[in-house]
Amino acid sequence: MRLRKKTWSSDIFEQHADSLVNDFEKIKGSWKQELDTELLHVEIGAGKGDYWHQLAELYPERGIVAMERDFTATSIALKKLDEQPGSRKRMIYGDAEALHEMFADGEVDVIHLNFSDPWKKNRHEKRRLTYKTKLDDYYKVLSDKGEIWMKTDNVGLFNYSLVSVSNHKFELVEVDVDFRSHEDEDPFTEYERKFHEKGQPIFRAIWRKKHDIK
Amino acid sequence: MRLRKKTWSSDIFEQHADSLVNDFEKIKGSWKQELDTELLHVEIGAGKGDYWHQLAELYPERGIVAMERDFTATSIALKKLDEQPGSRKRMIYGDAEALHEMFADGEVDVIHLNFSDPWKKNRHEKRRLTYKTKLDDYYKVLSDKGEIWMKTDNVGLFNYSLVSVSNHKFELVEVDVDFRSHEDEDPFTEYERKFHEKGQPIFRAIWRKKHDIK
Repeated sequence: MRLRKKTWSSDIFEQHADSLVNDFEKIKGSWKQELDTELLHVEIGAGKGDYWHQLAELYPERGIVAMERDFTATSIALKKLDEQPGSRKRMIYGDAEALHEMFADGEVDVIHLNFSDPWKKNRHEKRRLTYKTKLDDYYKVLSDKGEIWMKTDNVGLFNYSLVSVSNHKFELVEVDVDFRSHEDEDPFTEYERKFHEKGQPIFRAIWRKKHDIK
Repeated sequence: MRLRKKTWSSDIFEQHADSLVNDFEKIKGSWKQELDTELLHVEIGAGKGDYWHQLAELYPERGIVAMERDFTATSIALKKLDEQPGSRKRMIYGDAEALHEMFADGEVDVIHLNFSDPWKKNRHEKRRLTYKTKLDDYYKVLSDKGEIWMKTDNVGLFNYSLVSVSNHKFELVEVDVDFRSHEDEDPFTEYERKFHEKGQPIFRAIWRKKHDIK
């Protein structure tokens, strides 16, 4: 217990307590009010936070929430707030399993999935962030025209996701099997920059909530 | 008129008159009976026919129809019948615009689109083989569980098709953004072999007729 306490009270976490959201009972349902924004983005699996910070820079008027369950990555992402502060940025050190406890129905406008773990083995399919039960969770918290934006370099995960998401409560609105980020439109993640430098393809898709589902 | 007659009566066309279908009024609605098969494949834009011949070799019990509107390509494809004859192979020298005049509703099981012309310019969108009016045509002639199998190396055409087909009367059942043909499953086309040798990616998707459309 002592270790856990110590971990949580690390300097970085304490310094950025204002940006770190813990009390979901309080903020759930009033994220937009709290962040003084009309649009709310949530990145699930934000890693070291490059995308989070750049997206916030690109859309300073929007609320940008990064969610990450790895402690070290979360610390690194938070640390970058020293150089790139922002009143509409928030970080959640936690797991997307609890999404519905963090956000009210229809409260989120865009969910970002960047270079998510492919969980290659068939028996791990349920862990993939584009598995149908996860999609059910996204569907609930997303607004009427809510979207999922996905980027990955992983062929298997992309193939899987195209079929999975396009056939379950969402419709494919945009896809690029050779995506080049443009800094003025969608920022690079730390992974993406490396892949680009190596000339490896990046895949990207955008889906929107479907309303004529049975 | 003389030229046209001469063209049509070229040696190759004459030699393979049995494999070349002209009289659609006669065969429409009875293709399967005529070819003594339970499954009928149609390749639209068969080029020089490599895929056609290999597919027929792979599935000797199925009817395999190649459609091509380029005269020289059609001749080359027909010529290959000398080496690779087959009682269930047929060739159509014609345009897919007339698909409904060639096949009865529900008569086709698989439509193949291999390395189709990408028609890059926006103003040529309607010419793409995955434009919605073409999909309407395919939908009509395809059987209940009828499928479209598409392969291409063209990023723009693939991106376009994924969105176009998946949102119009068909559902995506399989996709591979880094497809490697396996000779025992889906043959190489002549283009594909070249791209593979150069290490360029091939994209492939399979869609199935949707029945809950409004």
